[in-house]
Amino acid sequence: MTPKMKPLSLPRRLLLGPGPSEVPPEVLKAMSTPLLGHLDPAFLQLMDETMAGLREVFATQNQMTLPISGTGSAGMEAAVVNLLNPGDRIVVGVCGYFGERLAEMARRRRAEVTVVEAPWGRPVDPDDVARALSNGGARVVAIVHGETSTGVLQPLAEISSLAKRHGALFLVDAVCTLGGLPVPTDELGIDLAYSGSQKCLSAPPGLAPLTASWEVMDRVRARKEASASWYLDLRLLDGYWAGAQRVYHHTAPISMIYALREALRLALDEGLEARYRRHQEAYKSLLAGLSRLGLEPAVAAEHRLPTLTAVKVPDGVDEKALRRRLLEEDGIEIAGGLGPFAGKIVRIGLMGHSARTENVERLLVVLGRALGR
Amino acid sequence: MTPKMKPLSLPRRLLLGPGPSEVPPEVLKAMSTPLLGHLDPAFLQLMDETMAGLREVFATQNQMTLPISGTGSAGMEAAVVNLLNPGDRIVVGVCGYFGERLAEMARRRRAEVTVVEAPWGRPVDPDDVARALSNGGARVVAIVHGETSTGVLQPLAEISSLAKRHGALFLVDAVCTLGGLPVPTDELGIDLAYSGSQKCLSAPPGLAPLTASWEVMDRVRARKEASASWYLDLRLLDGYWAGAQRVYHHTAPISMIYALREALRLALDEGLEARYRRHQEAYKSLLAGLSRLGLEPAVAAEHRLPTLTAVKVPDGVDEKALRRRLLEEDGIEIAGGLGPFAGKIVRIGLMGHSARTENVERLLVVLGRALGR
Repeated sequence: MTPKMKPLSLPRRLLLGPGPSEVPPEVLKAMSTPLLGHLDPAFLQLMDETMAGLREVFATQNQMTLPISGTGSAGMEAAVVNLLNPGDRIVVGVCGYFGERLAEMARRRRAEVTVVEAPWGRPVDPDDVARALSNGGARVVAIVHGETSTGVLQPLAEISSLAKRHGALFLVDAVCTLGGLPVPTDELGIDLAYSGSQKCLSAPPGLAPLTASWEVMDRVRARKEASASWYLDLRLLDGYWAGAQRVYHHTAPISMIYALREALRLALDEGLEARYRRHQEAYKSLLAGLSRLGLEPAVAAEHRLPTLTAVKVPDGVDEKALRRRLLEEDGIEIAGGLGPFAGKIVRIGLMGHSARTENVERLLVVLGRALGR
Repeated sequence: MTPKMKPLSLPRRLLLGPGPSEVPPEVLKAMSTPLLGHLDPAFLQLMDETMAGLREVFATQNQMTLPISGTGSAGMEAAVVNLLNPGDRIVVGVCGYFGERLAEMARRRRAEVTVVEAPWGRPVDPDDVARALSNGGARVVAIVHGETSTGVLQPLAEISSLAKRHGALFLVDAVCTLGGLPVPTDELGIDLAYSGSQKCLSAPPGLAPLTASWEVMDRVRARKEASASWYLDLRLLDGYWAGAQRVYHHTAPISMIYALREALRLALDEGLEARYRRHQEAYKSLLAGLSRLGLEPAVAAEHRLPTLTAVKVPDGVDEKALRRRLLEEDGIEIAGGLGPFAGKIVRIGLMGHSARTENVERLLVVLGRALGR
């Protein structure tokens, strides 16, 4: 006699944290579509459409543009394991939790890792990257575009130029930015970028959109030794997603591809410029409202990431109790700080479908009430 | 001006291939539930329930029983990367495509791989495993329980005893069996088993249920060097899924967990014994029907996997054309052969929600019509 479980019954939240973001009803509906097989011609066409849609949001002509079958961190690991061999040198800009994660993954790959640090709450200084590169011999320069742990937007152009000048590949973590602000892959000479489905694209978590340049793929195809990871091997993934034979690799997460494809359809339907503007407008209305409540962003104006705002916790306020109250009484999720920012900030995400002024207004009302302001 | 995509519009199929299997309406509905955050207390409870449900189907007391955030092959890679260090010896039974994949992953891990082969269509002979182990020093013995590429069911008890006798860990691929026939993890002394969500559990693809023994986890926790994979590191996954602190690792694929949890609820509601019986009944009605049509299974009766039946393609029949006709005219998916079986067999899966006599009857009618029998 096996035990029984109850039918799924969950509270309804408004997701204004660092992701997952709100998923539009059309995408939720796509998730409930009956499944096709992973080699069905109708599904192969859907894969092509998904790749085409991702090329639009990555602003790239890269053929190798697809969703990795895992969450954003699987995209990060796919980047590290395909770009680096043991002993290769990588320069990683670190100014928060996700830069640290990148460095950690590179160490596990037995790469020689040079960390270029900036204090949490500030971007990495290109001059520091230049100094780290001056020793020569780096195969990869890696940086996080939008640091979800601190709410800092990292300028990319100068670091990209430095990477090119030193013959290094330029790797960008676009988890917190893709679909919410421009990630101009080709224009900036990004060699590999990855993201997550659950942030500014507003699909559920479970896929990591990734794009890799022709040069990266030439190297991947020419390599003599197989990639350390079979699951994340870009050569095998290329054969399934883009090869003429569509060679079976692993069973694609069908329903998640439905969702991502639908999320991309909505993004292109809205128009990317309009979508980026909507994110800016929601961000500006949040800033104005925080100011009215006497709350202060943790990051200087010129470094702020519009999709994720770190807010200083006022003296005397227990941020855990504040977040619990918002979640349990008002059904709104925001997040706390990590690492050196734990207890000192709360993080408010305005990504994808969450980035709407009506959501901002609802949050401001309950924040004001909770803080007695 | 960005291009537009059309709303999702897909043909309806009856999935009787090697997976994904049919997903019950309740599970599809769960997929469209609005999302919770991955650290929401209500979601943490759902994770606990999912682990509890998985322990039932794995018939285990192992605390470390959870879904890996990737498809079945990610479960395989998680097993390999956590059980093996470079230079460790592994004995892998290979009698089909998925045993080969296991061996390939172990080679990429730089393990010393001893392959024990059996011809496609037959199980691995325990005597051959014993011979391979007699040299001593194997850290892991690995075998595929249900070989999806050939439709062979591998007896496990004798190989488990051999592994124990030689002090090796026993690793089992249960991708094609979990939820469709008993996988008695604790009773058989399996140290690590993994599966896929999209086969006999009838959730969509995207998760790899995995269970690891206390001994495996003791070793994982005691290891000095970090696992080569960050994403699949069982120590970090344990901290998020089961640790008192629920330390954030990666963002769980929320909607997929909803689906798996609902699929487990349905399985436990049906009762596991009743579910296994239903799989046997569907399989028997398929066998009887194939016999009426003069079609012959490719595997001897005593070695057949009830959830996946390989059928010999009659002389003069173009199996690709046959499968295309079934798919396009009748909306039924079955699969072709792989490797040495390409063109020689078709594969019929009766897994999870697909394993129903009405589905078998529908298939037999169209098969008979297509073959003119």
